[in-house]
Amino acid sequence: MSDATAHAPLAGVTVVTIEQAISAPLATRHLADLGARVIKIETPGYGDSTRHYDAVVGGLSAHFTWLNHGKESAALDLKSDADLALLHDILATADVFVSNLAPGALGRLGLGAAELAERYSRLIVVDISGYGTGGPYDHKRAYDLLIQSEGGVCASTGTPGHPAKPGVPVADVGTALYTYSTVLAALYDRERTGRGAVIPIAMLDTIAEMMGFAINGVIHAGVEPQPVGLGAPIVAPYGGYATADGQTAILGTTNDREWAKLTALIGRPELADDPRYARNVDRVAARAEVDDALAAWCAQHTLADIQDRADAAGIGNARLNTVRDLVDHPQLRDRGRWREVGTPSGPVPALLPPGVATTWAVRSGAVPALGEHTDAIRTEFGSR
Amino acid sequence: MSDATAHAPLAGVTVVTIEQAISAPLATRHLADLGARVIKIETPGYGDSTRHYDAVVGGLSAHFTWLNHGKESAALDLKSDADLALLHDILATADVFVSNLAPGALGRLGLGAAELAERYSRLIVVDISGYGTGGPYDHKRAYDLLIQSEGGVCASTGTPGHPAKPGVPVADVGTALYTYSTVLAALYDRERTGRGAVIPIAMLDTIAEMMGFAINGVIHAGVEPQPVGLGAPIVAPYGGYATADGQTAILGTTNDREWAKLTALIGRPELADDPRYARNVDRVAARAEVDDALAAWCAQHTLADIQDRADAAGIGNARLNTVRDLVDHPQLRDRGRWREVGTPSGPVPALLPPGVATTWAVRSGAVPALGEHTDAIRTEFGSR
Repeated sequence: MSDATAHAPLAGVTVVTIEQAISAPLATRHLADLGARVIKIETPGYGDSTRHYDAVVGGLSAHFTWLNHGKESAALDLKSDADLALLHDILATADVFVSNLAPGALGRLGLGAAELAERYSRLIVVDISGYGTGGPYDHKRAYDLLIQSEGGVCASTGTPGHPAKPGVPVADVGTALYTYSTVLAALYDRERTGRGAVIPIAMLDTIAEMMGFAINGVIHAGVEPQPVGLGAPIVAPYGGYATADGQTAILGTTNDREWAKLTALIGRPELADDPRYARNVDRVAARAEVDDALAAWCAQHTLADIQDRADAAGIGNARLNTVRDLVDHPQLRDRGRWREVGTPSGPVPALLPPGVATTWAVRSGAVPALGEHTDAIRTEFGSR
Repeated sequence: MSDATAHAPLAGVTVVTIEQAISAPLATRHLADLGARVIKIETPGYGDSTRHYDAVVGGLSAHFTWLNHGKESAALDLKSDADLALLHDILATADVFVSNLAPGALGRLGLGAAELAERYSRLIVVDISGYGTGGPYDHKRAYDLLIQSEGGVCASTGTPGHPAKPGVPVADVGTALYTYSTVLAALYDRERTGRGAVIPIAMLDTIAEMMGFAINGVIHAGVEPQPVGLGAPIVAPYGGYATADGQTAILGTTNDREWAKLTALIGRPELADDPRYARNVDRVAARAEVDDALAAWCAQHTLADIQDRADAAGIGNARLNTVRDLVDHPQLRDRGRWREVGTPSGPVPALLPPGVATTWAVRSGAVPALGEHTDAIRTEFGSR
């Protein structure tokens, strides 16, 4: 979508990060996507632990490749005075500092958020943690599954008696997106006030925000959301149904007007007039019955036939896709959503980021080898 | 965390939105949280469909209450020339316009993104859709479950043979956060260029970004992620284990160093030396065996004992919480994460947003009744 006048909105912004895994790396990758320079400080010899998850992308891991293109890697030993001084030389010229190390780790290096903010008044400092500062869980370890479990997500995912972790690392990705957005808000604020900011972000707070609907349901109605497989606790019928050709159609209705259309679609118009199923709350209470009606119809039709008829009736529908199907999805292909990014073993496909204005250029830089930019960064900043 | 000098970073920013459900409303609520004025245009007599999901919050729905505090509601009939002219009077002074109506709906009113951008050069226009513009799915209906199904999330969530929709509406929430962040990037950009922006956001692109690790695994290794309940496809052992006191402990290890600690914790040090389980890839291949060892130990200990011992050993752990447990979570209570917001039937608890700098004030406005601000907005803008 970019045109001849395309520009990178974050050109000129420098981000320094000491990061691991997903939450901070995805946030800083999006900053790089929009043109920021991202300097990733890694431990010499090992680096971001995500480098070691697997080696499927020509020796790089699937996760690391996803999260780190367009960044520079500087392998610095922050326990050495010289490298710590170099980091301060970099920070003195930087705009943003993002970290997601274990609680207290940066404080022991004199790199705590408050100290950095005092020393560099225009710096935007983001401190990502699992549970935030204060409270009994303050120093507890936090990974995506642990936070999703503490936050009630796993208990409300899966099927009754079989809770599950979502296929998307929601706590990590959500924390990344709050980090990304709050850095952008702070950059905007700094344009107007001239001041940086200290931004604490807790993974538990991220998950709690995302569960806001369920929290209100518990507080005000005492209703705990139950895992209902492919369904949604609050509407019915809605879910996955086996088709005559061995596929799974996703189909349903979110309101009472659509229910009337759906009953016509499946040749059961008498259900539309049945007071037992008239309102969504009635259908939720009779979930098994309305599910059965939809399942019986889908079992007699092919997926293509079901989708054509549902589209014609204005009823939302989808296919239960694998990730392979997503890779091959015509909507990604036909809309030009794929780009190439470099790696030490050659170019690989990557998706363009969501959320780009039509007049913005996207940066598509390479995935750095561990310490690939150490010498260049020593040369650039070491003489200051 | 706000202090005496706290300020709202988005004070003075006006957002106009024609929105439904979750994706646009959560994005604009976060803009309101940071001090923007948000004018929500609703259809007279019905409004945002989310108002009608249930009535548990003193007549308001759990979803609507979660997503709409701090906004003004103007009930306008955009098919009337007078109200459409009023909307243009509002847009002429606004900074941001966000919509997530069905494809083409705004274009028919002369409110398409390109038209608005041409007419209001400083306006930031966000057009949220399910599948984006172009491609065979261009006009297909899109709800959270449908997009999560198309995106491979449901197929990789749940247990084998029992795919599931995550308890968090990931497609909606993710789209909200890309909307929110991209608006902030555009506000920053406008400070430097003086120009607004047109921002298309597609729910499918959001989910595809979040599945980036799985996409790389499929492209480069041909490995489709399997639903493994509470586990994670890429590490083992990691999951939920029944405890002696009838609870579920979440426990595991993400790397080889932790595996050695874990085997000591569960009194099976010989496993640390067993080459069959030495590396994470080995343990993933022998998932059932390492799961069994952990399960046997957890079955003989209470949850509290397990958590104390795991904390002491530096092994990440959690509890499989319900949403009720989340509402009562000591980390939310002790860190002062709760605030009150108004509703037409009185104040209710709400969580503070994640991602707030320590020097920023958070706005905690009320949830508006349908059309509560119509008259005031007619008076304010109608005379222009």
